[in-house]
Amino acid sequence: MLWTIIGAAAATLTMFSFVPQIFRSLRTRSVKDVSPVTLFQLSTGVFLWMIYGISQKDPIIIVANAITLITLSVLIFLYFRYGRLVK
Amino acid sequence: MLWTIIGAAAATLTMFSFVPQIFRSLRTRSVKDVSPVTLFQLSTGVFLWMIYGISQKDPIIIVANAITLITLSVLIFLYFRYGRLVK
Repeated sequence: MLWTIIGAAAATLTMFSFVPQIFRSLRTRSVKDVSPVTLFQLSTGVFLWMIYGISQKDPIIIVANAITLITLSVLIFLYFRYGRLVK
Repeated sequence: MLWTIIGAAAATLTMFSFVPQIFRSLRTRSVKDVSPVTLFQLSTGVFLWMIYGISQKDPIIIVANAITLITLSVLIFLYFRYGRLVK
């Protein structure tokens, strides 16, 4: 039971970990210190995790990575939107 | 077999996803657009994943999250190092 709670807390924290970055980027309208390689590498990895979850029929892996992928997509959108403004 | 390869690719990509961000921060010596909340939230989540992996005796969860935690620790160190220089 304790481990289930720890696992759930871990999943929740990591799943939504890019939400503060989204709000910061929206507020400052600047993304020049954010690595686009990190954003794309992580998105590709998270997408493959989602595919892996589908193959294993594991709803937790699917949902957790789908949410992360959505937040990363928003961040990539902001990266290109604000990246052009800065340069 | 295909799914194992996809899972391994997913793990490798996500595990090392902050390495490009480390190199970018080292090169530009600027981290002001990086969200410290994201860094701390993700580190806490990844740490809990590692604890969860230990409880489940799952070496893959342990190693993958340990590596991510190390890269995030380097990034947090750089955040405070360069963060002070900028302001």
